Amino acid sequence: MNSKTSILLSIFKGIYFSSEELNIVERQFQKITLQKGDILLSSGKVVGEQYYIHSGCLRAFFISTDGKEHTIQFAIEDWWISDYTAFFTTSKAIMTIDCIKDATIYKISKESLEILYLEIPKLETFFRKKMEGSFSSFQKRILGTLSQTAKERYITFIKTYPDIQLSIKNYHIASYLGITTESLSRIRKEIAKK
Amino acid sequence: MNSKTSILLSIFKGIYFSSEELNIVERQFQKITLQKGDILLSSGKVVGEQYYIHSGCLRAFFISTDGKEHTIQFAIEDWWISDYTAFFTTSKAIMTIDCIKDATIYKISKESLEILYLEIPKLETFFRKKMEGSFSSFQKRILGTLSQTAKERYITFIKTYPDIQLSIKNYHIASYLGITTESLSRIRKEIAKK
Repeated sequence: MNSKTSILLSIFKGIYFSSEELNIVERQFQKITLQKGDILLSSGKVVGEQYYIHSGCLRAFFISTDGKEHTIQFAIEDWWISDYTAFFTTSKAIMTIDCIKDATIYKISKESLEILYLEIPKLETFFRKKMEGSFSSFQKRILGTLSQTAKERYITFIKTYPDIQLSIKNYHIASYLGITTESLSRIRKEIAKK
Repeated sequence: MNSKTSILLSIFKGIYFSSEELNIVERQFQKITLQKGDILLSSGKVVGEQYYIHSGCLRAFFISTDGKEHTIQFAIEDWWISDYTAFFTTSKAIMTIDCIKDATIYKISKESLEILYLEIPKLETFFRKKMEGSFSSFQKRILGTLSQTAKERYITFIKTYPDIQLSIKNYHIASYLGITTESLSRIRKEIAKK
């Protein structure tokens, strides 16, 4: 089994593929290697792909009219990322995605996904369930933004991304939480005191 | 054609059903009539259903530890609502859903959905696409919360729910926007002045 095959099997954990199906799946994915600082997707570009993170870390952010960066999502090993609003509607990205830790990712286009759904219907089920999971995380994030204090949001963040703190800059975390880096330091000190 | 049939056809606009398929679909949906003030779903209950709004208006909200209500979503005609995080994982609701304008809705259980996915695979595609649409709205809502002023969020709200203002109390709109009713009045006056 080559390394691409074994990575694809880890993407679709728990799904049994015939060798013919595996060939179809393999043809739809392309490997991309990114270095820290690389831009994967720029706002304004039409989005036709989504990305599976095999290793490393990516970040999706949005720049508001006042020039501030707002981090929407981090993506670590075994996560998926894209500007999904743009991807689903094949329209222009409003977010930018950059690499914040050297990464190996696998991209799949919308057309390739449609091929998979048609040829291997159980993959439509797989992606529906993935979507349900992402939807739940976004719903939790909205609840958090509306109802939690910055400290509570930070605690949720650590639980969501347990190992991420080593590879992410403080100002990225602060922009994800919607607070300043000063507030982030204060919260960390408060938690450390306990 | 009975009225339930025609409503189901309007739920699944654009999908062709054989009469056998239509029978299967009909068996999975149950009609519920709600009056303003009725609670459809209480936080703490296990969620096994999602709801299609045929008429009227529902609201999903979350009560934070300080007793404040935070409105996550309104659902009007032709929208779906549930505590999706709880629904997808068959766990306890953290939100409550109440009726804010007399409503006729159709519920479908998770088990019934699984039957539909198995018996009529094109419905799995339908629900995957619905999910993609909801996911996009949630992503936009997160972007909005992170980066927009209250006034900009109000304008987005009016565009999202154009006819809703007649049936919704000001404090519901304010709790959706994460502002006080006083701020809401000020914003409305500012917009009216222009």
